[in-house]
Amino acid sequence: MNLSVCRSVLVTGCSRGIGLKLAAELAAGRTGPATVIATARQPEACPSLLELSKKYAAVHVVKLDVCSQQSIDSALEEVRSIVGDEGLGCLINNAAIGYSTNINTVTPEDMMTAFQANAVAPLFVTKAFLPLLQTAAANSTGMGIHRAAVINVSSVLGSIELNTGDFKSYAYRTSKAALNMVTRCLAADLSSDGILCVSLHPGWVKTDMGGPRASLTVEESVSGMLSVISGLSERDHGGFKDYRGQNLPW
Amino acid sequence: MNLSVCRSVLVTGCSRGIGLKLAAELAAGRTGPATVIATARQPEACPSLLELSKKYAAVHVVKLDVCSQQSIDSALEEVRSIVGDEGLGCLINNAAIGYSTNINTVTPEDMMTAFQANAVAPLFVTKAFLPLLQTAAANSTGMGIHRAAVINVSSVLGSIELNTGDFKSYAYRTSKAALNMVTRCLAADLSSDGILCVSLHPGWVKTDMGGPRASLTVEESVSGMLSVISGLSERDHGGFKDYRGQNLPW
Ligand SMILES: NC(=O)c1ccc[n+]([C@@H]2O[C@H](COP(=O)([O-])OP(=O)(O)OC[C@H]3O[C@@H](n4cnc5c(N)ncnc54)[C@H](OP(=O)(O)O)[C@@H]3O)[C@@H](O)[C@H]2O)c1
Ligand SMILES: NC(=O)c1ccc[n+]([C@@H]2O[C@H](COP(=O)([O-])OP(=O)(O)OC[C@H]3O[C@@H](n4cnc5c(N)ncnc54)[C@H](OP(=O)(O)O)[C@@H]3O)[C@@H](O)[C@H]2O)c1
Repeated sequence: MNLSVCRSVLVTGCSRGIGLKLAAELAAGRTGPATVIATARQPEACPSLLELSKKYAAVHVVKLDVCSQQSIDSALEEVRSIVGDEGLGCLINNAAIGYSTNINTVTPEDMMTAFQANAVAPLFVTKAFLPLLQTAAANSTGMGIHRAAVINVSSVLGSIELNTGDFKSYAYRTSKAALNMVTRCLAADLSSDGILCVSLHPGWVKTDMGGPRASLTVEESVSGMLSVISGLSERDHGGFKDYRGQNLPW
Repeated sequence: MNLSVCRSVLVTGCSRGIGLKLAAELAAGRTGPATVIATARQPEACPSLLELSKKYAAVHVVKLDVCSQQSIDSALEEVRSIVGDEGLGCLINNAAIGYSTNINTVTPEDMMTAFQANAVAPLFVTKAFLPLLQTAAANSTGMGIHRAAVINVSSVLGSIELNTGDFKSYAYRTSKAALNMVTRCLAADLSSDGILCVSLHPGWVKTDMGGPRASLTVEESVSGMLSVISGLSERDHGGFKDYRGQNLPW
């Protein structure tokens, strides 16, 4: 990856899993951004995250519960003072909840909760941080990580076309399909600001969500994701890619 | 259309618009089903619907608010006694709410409300009526309206691929993309029962939702929809079609 052209990256859901590793790799890399804003809903309860911010001056830990507008508003103020006039170069909407719900077990509450966390929250986090992304975008031209970008961490399980019934999860699948539509709506609305927006599938990853039988380590997934993010250009805008850079069908 | 091979059709949202016209055409047609169950959340406040049930013996009006599990449960009991041992041949999930919300106006409440009515409700209505659909399906073979089917009235605005930013509606678009995923999840789960499941786009129709500038009359849309429904076969299972029978991309 070369993300040094991007001044600052904010990642949601950094308490563990992919989010924590994204923050760590961004901070550790020689070609990482100058500022890494690692957010979590309870950072005080995440020793690994606090370690990270002690180890790397680039890392700023900010409290952010993506499902709470009040929390989003407070985080915005804090991030504004961290990034200053340069704005925010990249927002990675990574926080999400996983669910395995088949037709017998699914409840309306599961559907609503997954939709709120996985589709609604990324929209309102993006909406809140938009002025900071616009500030970053205003200082540059073209499209890509050198200017400004929103990365929605989606899932192949959100691909409607690829759902042939293998993995049953009404709640998670609909929430990620909905997130993909949010990506597409945002892509249309952010084009004129030059802010790139994509859905990115991290692969099946050994985390609390992916489980121990997953095919990728967190390192492999994050290294692929960061390499894809570094290489994004105008033709990827509004698209759906995986951690290897392959396009996925909606 | 030839829907006489289907013993009974239940339509949600028959107070007006496409739902009311579907019920009327199904009842009036010589080749319609023997039983038409026209549901609405407040049938007592719908003179046209009450007229219809007076005019045609085939029409049964049943109260159903698709967003209320209690209402779904009561409607199920009533429908069970109407259809008896033959079960329910076809469920048309038509009820929905429309929204025009751009990035500046959209609220989390809009997102949640549209998702509940347009994606969650059709899932739980289908889940409730599944035993009746299974009863109908058990009496036949193959796949199609002669056996049993679930028709989710979706929208081209729910196509993630076709969203290039023309019509702005975060809430409606995400809810219909989510509904399309529900169709796909149901298609996988209902296959073994021989119950066909599709998403169907009615076109842009002059109703309260579509507005007066829409390109189709309700007659044109409903006539197309019923003809598509009559012709559905196994290869359409889990698909997304419009009122002319054209496939739409997810
Ligand atoms: N693992 C996979 O195989 C896989 C596959 C496809 C896509 N993904 C996607 O990749 C992303 C990361 O998943 P993961 O595997 O790292 O999952 P994970 O290990 O379960 O971690 C999820 C993260 O999201 C956070 N989170 C959940 N709700 C939140 C909220 N309201 N506010 C703030 N943070 C919240 C969690 O924080 P807490 O610790 O506070 O709960 C945690 O940090 C998700 O978008 C997921 O859908 C994962
Ligand atoms: N018109 C178009 O251009 C167009 C285009 C694409 C897709 N569609 C889809 O076609 C379907 C019918 O739309 P339409 O144009 O006929 O819209 P409409 O004229 O606004 O009618 C909507 C119907 O849904 C009912 N409904 C809403 N919430 C309900 C609930 N909780 N319980 C029971 N019924 C409920 C309404 O009942 P009340 O009278 O009680 O509110 C009404 O009967 C919808 O799925 C819509 O998304 C329409």
